[in-house]
Amino acid sequence: MIAERLSQLGIDLPPVSPPVGNYLGCVVVDDLIHVGGHGPIGGPERFAGKVGTDLTVEDGYRAARATGLSILATLAAELGSLDRIDRIVKVFGMVNVAPGFTRTPEVVDGCWDLLVEVFGGAGRQTRSAVGMAELPFDIPVEIELIARLRG
Amino acid sequence: MIAERLSQLGIDLPPVSPPVGNYLGCVVVDDLIHVGGHGPIGGPERFAGKVGTDLTVEDGYRAARATGLSILATLAAELGSLDRIDRIVKVFGMVNVAPGFTRTPEVVDGCWDLLVEVFGGAGRQTRSAVGMAELPFDIPVEIELIARLRG
Amino acid sequence: MIAERLSQLGIDLPPVSPPVGNYLGCVVVDDLIHVGGHGPIGGPERFAGKVGTDLTVEDGYRAARATGLSILATLAAELGSLDRIDRIVKVFGMVNVAPGFTRTPEVVDGCWDLLVEVFGGAGRQTRSAVGMAELPFDIPVEIELIARLRG
Repeated sequence: MIAERLSQLGIDLPPVSPPVGNYLGCVVVDDLIHVGGHGPIGGPERFAGKVGTDLTVEDGYRAARATGLSILATLAAELGSLDRIDRIVKVFGMVNVAPGFTRTPEVVDGCWDLLVEVFGGAGRQTRSAVGMAELPFDIPVEIELIARLRG
Repeated sequence: MIAERLSQLGIDLPPVSPPVGNYLGCVVVDDLIHVGGHGPIGGPERFAGKVGTDLTVEDGYRAARATGLSILATLAAELGSLDRIDRIVKVFGMVNVAPGFTRTPEVVDGCWDLLVEVFGGAGRQTRSAVGMAELPFDIPVEIELIARLRG
Repeated sequence: MIAERLSQLGIDLPPVSPPVGNYLGCVVVDDLIHVGGHGPIGGPERFAGKVGTDLTVEDGYRAARATGLSILATLAAELGSLDRIDRIVKVFGMVNVAPGFTRTPEVVDGCWDLLVEVFGGAGRQTRSAVGMAELPFDIPVEIELIARLRG
């Protein structure tokens, strides 16, 4: 059903981004799945730099959406199907900010809006959206997430 | 009983701060409650800026306490009663720091001390207290928390 | 068995670092253990400052390894034996970065490599490795972790 919704929304998931190094993109523990930090990797658009100088809020929003798509690709590969997601629990959104850039929630909304498009009410979650000094590879957004699996 | 203790301590909870945007202030999953990032919102005092320049450590401590009160308001609204809290598990304290300001634990203590006043030993938790480049709306402190609910 | 492996690897755990203040180094909740922020404390080497200026990537890597050892000391003291660890679930690695330093994953690898040396495949986890504006006491690395305990 989620696959159908993705199709209706015209969303193509990117290829799964193998984690840099030997660690794991996500780990299932009991009925939760912990997804480590993902960036806006694997989609058609390339994103680099700090939001507020190198990138606009709108660029950052698109980067956060691309990050969400990369997370969905990881979840789909791990779980076989996104239908196994019962709900998104928590998002920790980190924005690579230029000094003085505080509109981090508007950036992370790019991921949040995607999750609600795809999962509806089950995509709503609690979150933080904060400004980091630097992110690896100078990506503008990094997001990690906890989701609950169906029983 | 926690309501009585709040009363004895002379603590009034602020109104629940609706999350900016459409996401949730907290999510219950199994026997845990995940509280997303809260700031020092809803109380009588206004806080903005960076600790170390705009604000002193003492200001930051009060901001962290106000943030803790906002979290308690969210918990009370979600759970009906703070008596449903079995214990606080973890606090992630983020301080909006001026360059060179490293006394972040003294700031986050404002929330920690509140939790121990209110919950006693059950308010003790493991934590981090770290320095962020920027926080949304230029708040000086943002805190998220995990608590365990009674069975 | 983990104690034997530590011995074979020539790894001596440092003394447990008491948390600064009155909070806890870790909290067990159900079958998970949450370890709050640890720094590179308790070992023979002293680490301070920002990676990228005060410290090289190699210094940072050693600091992350020392941080991992401090975490293992906390886990061993809490659990009695590291054999109670079923697997490491998630690592949140925070690096005290100089402006422009984005090689944070190479730093956090110091902890990651240690966990895999000690726990083998069970030490592999999902993670983030991000750049902080400041860390308490000017430590170069702070790491928190979630692990699953054996049933």
